[in-house]
Amino acid sequence: MPSYKLTYFDCRFYGETTRLIFVASGTEFEDILLHMDHKDFYVLKSTGKLPLGQVPILEVDGRLMCQSRAIQRYVAREVGKYGSSNGEAATIDEVTETCDELLENAAPWLYREQDPEKKAAIRKEYLEEKGPHRLSYLEKKLQSNPSGYFAGSSLTLADLAVFNILDILNDNMPEVITAYPSLLALKAKVAADEKIAKYLTTRPKTEM
Amino acid sequence: MPSYKLTYFDCRFYGETTRLIFVASGTEFEDILLHMDHKDFYVLKSTGKLPLGQVPILEVDGRLMCQSRAIQRYVAREVGKYGSSNGEAATIDEVTETCDELLENAAPWLYREQDPEKKAAIRKEYLEEKGPHRLSYLEKKLQSNPSGYFAGSSLTLADLAVFNILDILNDNMPEVITAYPSLLALKAKVAADEKIAKYLTTRPKTEM
Repeated sequence: MPSYKLTYFDCRFYGETTRLIFVASGTEFEDILLHMDHKDFYVLKSTGKLPLGQVPILEVDGRLMCQSRAIQRYVAREVGKYGSSNGEAATIDEVTETCDELLENAAPWLYREQDPEKKAAIRKEYLEEKGPHRLSYLEKKLQSNPSGYFAGSSLTLADLAVFNILDILNDNMPEVITAYPSLLALKAKVAADEKIAKYLTTRPKTEM
Repeated sequence: MPSYKLTYFDCRFYGETTRLIFVASGTEFEDILLHMDHKDFYVLKSTGKLPLGQVPILEVDGRLMCQSRAIQRYVAREVGKYGSSNGEAATIDEVTETCDELLENAAPWLYREQDPEKKAAIRKEYLEEKGPHRLSYLEKKLQSNPSGYFAGSSLTLADLAVFNILDILNDNMPEVITAYPSLLALKAKVAADEKIAKYLTTRPKTEM
């Protein structure tokens, strides 16, 4: 069994999907949480250890990986959560890349933009356009697969990535996700998974 | 042999890496080029056929795929250009995601920003910070593998994605890539590949 050590901020954003893959597959990993005040991040960065000066990073038996999406796919393949065919993997990629866009577009109104007026305008655009555009695509995509999961007949990286963005949106802009019954059913199903449910009660409560 | 039909604008940006994978592997594909004036794109969009209202899309025996990175990985897996282990695939992912960031960060000064002053400032930041930050990571990564390719001992998606961003930068900001001898050697090696070389002489000349 390889030794996995994930380092990321004490929040969900770009690191949580990987944590959820570990949890859902019952794979042990060391979960190193950097405080959101960035102090321990800057200490880590000053060592020159971070390949791109960013987190998350994943160490697997001493090998260091960077780039959040590369990490989540690596782990998903490793534990069998990346579909069972190239077609299923492609569906998972289409879905996770749409989740990445939903996350990227949320960053300005969640934390990057400081000017209250600009922040409000970006938030409004997300609520009315950017969010619904991608969420309705995901809703349709999920409905096209009779199993209630995005790819094949069991839980994959795609479902966990969607769970994560819905979970973050639910805490910060709940009104944007109410119109998507299939996505909400998936969110509830993932949350009810025995291993995930246990993890959700113990993980730190974070804003994003 | 599946029938592949790729639809994208008559430019390199988000579609060319997939074209290069087809070419390098000797796989036939239909290359549908939409004119940059967007007229035929809007006609296509109005049919409601585009899952996210965007191109590129790929049709494989009637199945429709979207999201450029999902498409390029699907094709790379299909034709054996995605490495021969999970570790190699992770390296390929780390590299391609860094290329994606280089492309994304180039978009504002290449075409998105219209204000000349803002455009110049964004361009300067790319030349002095954003570009070198990622290009030096790629240079180091390439140097860590003795074969001269990014993953394993043969050409993969990673090398083609890097070729594409270097090719675009070479045409628009050549000074940003001069400090990376290993990347330039890879660019030359890819360009000299018999199938790629032939393709490069026949493809349309585009700005980006």
